Parts: sequence; structure tokens; C-alpha cells
Amino acid sequence: MSAEEFRKHGKQVIDWIADYMAGIESYPVRSQVRPGDIRAALPECAPEQGEPFDQILADLERIIMPGVTHWQHPNFFAYFPANTSGPGILGDLLSSGLGVQGMIWATSPACTELETVVVDWLADLLGLPRHWRTDARGGGVIEDSASSGSLVALLAALHRAGRARNTLYVSSQTHSSLEKAAIIAGVAKENVRIVDVDPDPLAMRPGHLAELIAQDLRDGYTPTMVCATIGTTSTTAIDPVRRIGELCAEHGIWLHVDAAYAGVAAVCEELRWINDGVAEFVDSYVTDPHKWLLTNFDCTVLWVADRAPLIEALSVLPEYLRNAATESGEVIDYRDWQIPLGRRFRSLKLWAVLRWYGAEGLREHIRTGVALADELAGWVAEHDDFALLEHHPFGLVCFRPLWPERSVADAEAATISLLDRLNDSGDIYLSHTKIDGRTTLRVAIGAPATTHDHVLTAWRRINAEYRALRA
Amino acid sequence: MSAEEFRKHGKQVIDWIADYMAGIESYPVRSQVRPGDIRAALPECAPEQGEPFDQILADLERIIMPGVTHWQHPNFFAYFPANTSGPGILGDLLSSGLGVQGMIWATSPACTELETVVVDWLADLLGLPRHWRTDARGGGVIEDSASSGSLVALLAALHRAGRARNTLYVSSQTHSSLEKAAIIAGVAKENVRIVDVDPDPLAMRPGHLAELIAQDLRDGYTPTMVCATIGTTSTTAIDPVRRIGELCAEHGIWLHVDAAYAGVAAVCEELRWINDGVAEFVDSYVTDPHKWLLTNFDCTVLWVADRAPLIEALSVLPEYLRNAATESGEVIDYRDWQIPLGRRFRSLKLWAVLRWYGAEGLREHIRTGVALADELAGWVAEHDDFALLEHHPFGLVCFRPLWPERSVADAEAATISLLDRLNDSGDIYLSHTKIDGRTTLRVAIGAPATTHDHVLTAWRRINAEYRALRA
Repeated sequence: MSAEEFRKHGKQVIDWIADYMAGIESYPVRSQVRPGDIRAALPECAPEQGEPFDQILADLERIIMPGVTHWQHPNFFAYFPANTSGPGILGDLLSSGLGVQGMIWATSPACTELETVVVDWLADLLGLPRHWRTDARGGGVIEDSASSGSLVALLAALHRAGRARNTLYVSSQTHSSLEKAAIIAGVAKENVRIVDVDPDPLAMRPGHLAELIAQDLRDGYTPTMVCATIGTTSTTAIDPVRRIGELCAEHGIWLHVDAAYAGVAAVCEELRWINDGVAEFVDSYVTDPHKWLLTNFDCTVLWVADRAPLIEALSVLPEYLRNAATESGEVIDYRDWQIPLGRRFRSLKLWAVLRWYGAEGLREHIRTGVALADELAGWVAEHDDFALLEHHPFGLVCFRPLWPERSVADAEAATISLLDRLNDSGDIYLSHTKIDGRTTLRVAIGAPATTHDHVLTAWRRINAEYRALRA
Repeated sequence: MSAEEFRKHGKQVIDWIADYMAGIESYPVRSQVRPGDIRAALPECAPEQGEPFDQILADLERIIMPGVTHWQHPNFFAYFPANTSGPGILGDLLSSGLGVQGMIWATSPACTELETVVVDWLADLLGLPRHWRTDARGGGVIEDSASSGSLVALLAALHRAGRARNTLYVSSQTHSSLEKAAIIAGVAKENVRIVDVDPDPLAMRPGHLAELIAQDLRDGYTPTMVCATIGTTSTTAIDPVRRIGELCAEHGIWLHVDAAYAGVAAVCEELRWINDGVAEFVDSYVTDPHKWLLTNFDCTVLWVADRAPLIEALSVLPEYLRNAATESGEVIDYRDWQIPLGRRFRSLKLWAVLRWYGAEGLREHIRTGVALADELAGWVAEHDDFALLEHHPFGLVCFRPLWPERSVADAEAATISLLDRLNDSGDIYLSHTKIDGRTTLRVAIGAPATTHDHVLTAWRRINAEYRALRA
């Protein structure tokens, strides 16, 4: 494709996306297709001759779009939001257009240095400790996901502890990616300890953690890493980082914080309490600008308080990557901070987002989500037919419809039926979790397009469907 | 950013990229900045108020671009190419615009099903075995990089073998990502066996592999995976897959093929000999459309002959991801085929590339690279002052300037000086490797913009600089 063809088709694609943004409410939130529908609609093999770009766009519209679930839809309340935004998309587009590799400083210095600058900027915006900045002992890096960031942290912890009967401590509410990281890193599943949580708000119990560590030490294990979560996936519970940190410090255990969803909320001063204990005790910390900070996936930031064990854990230097800049020690080679070797110029999108919105714009986005969630929680609390989970400091509201005079099993079936009817309708999309064995609705607010009216309409829709099922 | 602001700024960015493509030769290939230059030119902290998009683009031009090494430049001959193309960029742009998550089928069915279709298409285009297709026992998946693909393959191999004193077999020419994968997976570095290579073309010696396996079996190790390479990074050597495969079959060892760079060359029938033995013996295979098949990074395809051990190795199912489609067994959840949980809609770019170019266009791209490399190798071979590495089946040509009457140390210094002068000039960019301890130039041809004239000019430039140094 020539530069001029690119210019023409590129503008078509920009128009297509702008129209998609403007018209997103015309789509059902959740795709209505059945397994295999899309595959069946596509040809058996690639074309022998090239095809015009218009044909590709037409097939996107006709074949692909019915199979898309619209994560940017204002009525998408499932999972956690996956924010995208104009400047984020355009930053990513610039990265694709430049097509550089940032595996080491020498392969494109700006790719490394802009990343260092924006992760330092973000650390400041979130009020994270100064010593995590790259001009101190720590440093940040953009990873593809919190899963990968947590795996990298575990590898640094394993390196620091030495590999010998290592144990990892999580709670039943910790994200599944930590168990997966353990499996990947060769820490057997049976050496992943599950710490009890308090009943509400489902936060890790430091007392039980202390017992497990003591028992493991008696049994000759090497307690290696604790993962504390700030904003669990299920209910946005917040583990007591300070008390966990005191235990970790006492035993020299690596403390990792998974703040994938909620960490970015600390752009707002009034939410910085979530990071209590982080500055004093935490070795590594992940948060996802791609969840709730207007940056399109993939953009997780991992910070470490000390970059040395991370780099030592992951450095392998073959001849073809040797170069004067690396050997001078003056530069960062981010390939030593991640699983893959290759890396895109991901900092461009975070840079574009931080500049376009500014700190004020980012705070406004978080505050809007928190305020809408607060409003919804108020409506739920006032309603006798729903049981609200009181804890909702961020954009997630969890609640459960009540089914008086029904058995637990029947009530469960009715809740699942309610959820299915809502999601099948295409009007709104929620997800669920289980609390005390009971299926609970999760309404995650945070898509940039979501307004008061969308939340109110969703609440009315849930009520109407509930009444229909109860009747 | 509103849809209309996006429309406006999006077109500015498209114009910027089209101008960049058209004017790329006006830039020095390799960035001329010193460590810290870019960082020093950027502000200390993020702006408090948002800034206009024009300001971001202006700073891109003024601050960022001097720090960019131009991987798409026609005179970029370093490493392996990192191809980008118009349809690839636009496919990625669509993915950013849709902003969907493809972690499981249910979160956006088209994201999964289009991926299944395009990796099956590509398997056919490369003449790979039918049983690797998803409608048989195997299957393909898009990973971010061959490093990650190889790690995933190793995890499947470890799962199949059981984790107990596992050993991994590579050669001295195997990509460093395999050693890194072993470290990540908890296979100690001392259990990575280095198989000898033949002097030319530096391919793995099956006889030595057999000896190492036999010794390990006697010593109570579990030989778990052999990585054979088709097109090594250093010199594009090809390990004898068939003979290695016979050994693996005999001992039940997982055979992984790293064809990151060269695998895509099999779109051309006349190059399919590189895959001799692959259909019969290989368990997993990675190749990178982002290297030499016009698809911008990141786009590695990993195929497995049997998807069961892969999925078993990597599946973790928390409550919040449970859904009817997954439980029906009718769908693929690609999160179980990769390290991270989240995933972008990467198949859109590969789909756009395969359709825009068609099989014919892809073959033409590969053939152009091979022909240009062949031509360059011819010039080198005819020249008495350079020693050519005879093996050059793809786009890489390796050769070494001769420095008569100089000691080995002086000759080495002169070669490195030649390389530095060429790369520092900004006119062309080469990388190097060591063969038999001697620094050897690598000229990797394959950027879409590279023509006969560029290669000829590069060759003349190398000659001129060489003569200047020899004088």
C-alpha cells in the first residue's frame, strides 16, 4: 500500500471509527451471535489475489461487527471497563505508523526515554513514593497487562529469595492471574497459600497470613511473595497493605500490590487513602491505565521500589544485542523488565492521554465514575428488594436481588435468569460474582461515554426485569 | 475527545504518517541522540490542564523524532526487519478504535473467531500440516512475540512431561528467548543443555543432541523439550528438524520450532524445503508475520499439533469468567493459550494484510527480499576483500571484511570501527554477530521500502568506508 493509498484509506478508517463512536448506542451491548457464526461467515482460505480496502471495510461491517461486544458502549457495565479514548487511539496509531522496536535503548532511544518519563509522571500524578521513580532506585515500565506485570514481579521475588520451596500468599479474592503466574514460574499450585478474608469487605486477614507464614517457616518453606490487592476484581475489596507490609518486612518477603483496576483512582487526592502503607512496605505495584484511565489496552504500569532484582532476574545478553549504550550503563533496556523481547512504542498513547486530558481531566473522569456508582448504590440501598454490598469506593456496585419465600437454589436460579435476560437483551451488559456462595450482580461504571442517564436507565431496566421475574 | 475532535485529529495523524512514509529517507536511519537527550527535553511532570492535540504532534516532531531509529527506512538492514504496512496499521487502528477485550470468546466472539480463521488461513498459506488447524487437534493463536510463544510452548511441554528435573535442549545459535523462557518457567539455567553446531552453516548436530539426551536419562533428568530453529538470528542457519524429530519421537520429547524470522518464507513453494520434517515431528511452531510478512508488531503465530496440553497447562477459571459458552465446550478461550489474561483484537491486522496483499502479494514480498539478498551475496562473493558466509537462503547476508597483514585483534577492531562508522553516519544501519569468534556484518534485507538501488548504494557505502579504513 503506497503512502497515498494509506492516506486515503486511513481517512476512511478514521471516519469509520468516529462514526462508530458517535453511533455506538445503536449496537446491542453484547454480541448476539452463537458460537461458530462468525467463523462460518468467513471464507475457507485467504484470497490468492489482493482485494480492495473497501471490501475489507465492508466485510468488517457485515461479518465482524455482529460478533463484537461493545466495551466502549455506555451501557457496558460488565467486568471492569476497558477505557479507550481519542488521544489513546491516536497515540497507538502513531506507534503503529512508526513501527519501531523498543527492546533495548539502542533500537530506538525515544521509545525507552519517553516511557521512562511518562511512568515517572504517572507515579507523581498518583502520589506514589519518590523512590519508585527511575531517577531513584526504583522505576516503572509499561507491560501489556497486570497479569504479566505480576508475573514479572514474582520472578523478581523468586530471584531475590532464591528458588527453593517457594510459597506465594494470596487471598480467595486475589485475581486468578497470580495463580497463573505461580504455575508459569514453576511454583507449584499447592505452594500457593490462600489467606482467609474478612466477611465484609472481603479483605485479606493479616492474622491468618501470619499463621500461614509461621507454619511454612516451621516446615522449611521459603515464603517468597505476598500479593495484596487494592480493589479486588470481585468486589473492589482493599487488603490491609500496611499490616501485611509489616509482616512482609519482618520476614523479608516481597510485597506485591495488584491495583490493576483501582490504582489509577489515586489521581484524586481524596482517594489516596487506598495506598496506605504502600510507600513504606511495597516492593512492586501494578495498575492499568487501560482499565480506568482513558488509555486503550494494552497499558499496565508496573513499578518496583528497587529495579536491581528485577533486571537481574530477567537479563540475558546475546551477542547480537550487545551495544555501547547498554555497556555504558547509562541507559535502560526495558526488555529486561518484561517477558517478551520485542516491544512497541506504547508510551506514545499514555503520553497523548496525559497531555490531552491533563491531571484535571483525568481526575474528572475518575470522579464521574465514583459519583455515578455512589448514586446507583444509593438507589439500591433504598430499595427493599435488593441487598447492597456496602463497600463501593470506586466505580463498581455489587448487589443481589432478593427472592422472598424462595429456596436458596430457586433464588440463585432466579438471579441467574435475571442476569441472562438483561444480557441477552443487548440493552445492558453486567457480570456477576459470588459472595458467600450467592450470585451477586456487578455493575462496573467507568466507560467514558456513560452518563447519569445511562446508569438510571440501567437501574430501571434491572428493576423492570426483576419485577417481571418475580411476578 | 469527542467523536468530531477525533475525526479531525485522526486525519491529521493519518496525514502525518503518510508524510512520514513518503519522506522516510530524509531521516538518518539510526537515531543520533545521546543517552538522556530525549528525557532532558521533556517536562518534569504531566500538565495540570489538558493541551491541544496540535501541541502533542508538534512535540512529537521536535522532541521525539530525533530519538527514533527508523525501522521502516529502506536502508535499515539491522537485526531482522520489523515489517509494517498500510493495511497492517489500519487493522491495528480498527482494533484500537473498537477497544474490545478478547480474553474469552464471550467477551467479543468475533475477536476469537476471526483469529481462528486467519491463523488457519496462514497455516494453509505456509503449507503447514492440516492437523495443526483448529478444526483438527491442533490450533494456532496470535502471541505478542516469538519469545512469549516459545515460553507458552515450553509450559505445555513441562505440563506434558511433569515437572521433575526437566532439561531443555538448544544450540549456541538458538535465540536467547529460549534461555529466558527456561529461567521464567523455573527450569534452572544449568538444565538448559547447549548442543554443538556444525561449523557451517551453524546448525544443531543431532549426534551431540543424542549424546546429551542419553546422558541426561542416565542421570535421572527428564528431557522435556528440544528447540530447533529454522533461520537462526545470527546467520539464518536451519537445524535438521527431521533428524532432531526422530530423536524426540523416540524419547517422547516435545519438539518446538522457532521459525520466528524465516517461517513466513514458506508462503513461497520454492522455500517450503525449510520445513522438512515439521509435519511429522513438531509439537509447536512459531513464526512472526511482524518480521517479514508485512504485519506490524506485535503478531507472532504459535501453532500446536495438539492443543490439549497447552490449554491444560494454562487454564485457571475464576468465577467472574464463568459463562455458558465456555462451559459448552463449543468455543475457544484464547486466554488459555497465552501468558496474559487480556488480549487485543490483533487478528484484524493480519486479516487486513492477508486480504490486501493476497497470497500473491505476500510471495512477491518474500521473493523480492530473497532476490536482493542473493544479489548482494553475489557482489560480496566476487570481492576479494570480504569473506562471505555461503549460507543465505532468506534475506540475511553475513560477511566479514578482510584486513590483510593485521593481527586478529587489530582486524576485529577495524571491523568494529567500520560498523560504527557506517551506523554513526545515519546513512545505513547494520548489525553484527560473531562467527568463530570473528565479528561479522549482518545485512538483513526485507523492509518493504528497500529496492535494488538501496542495496547497491549500501554495498558501495560499505566498500567506500572499508577502503577509507584500510588506507
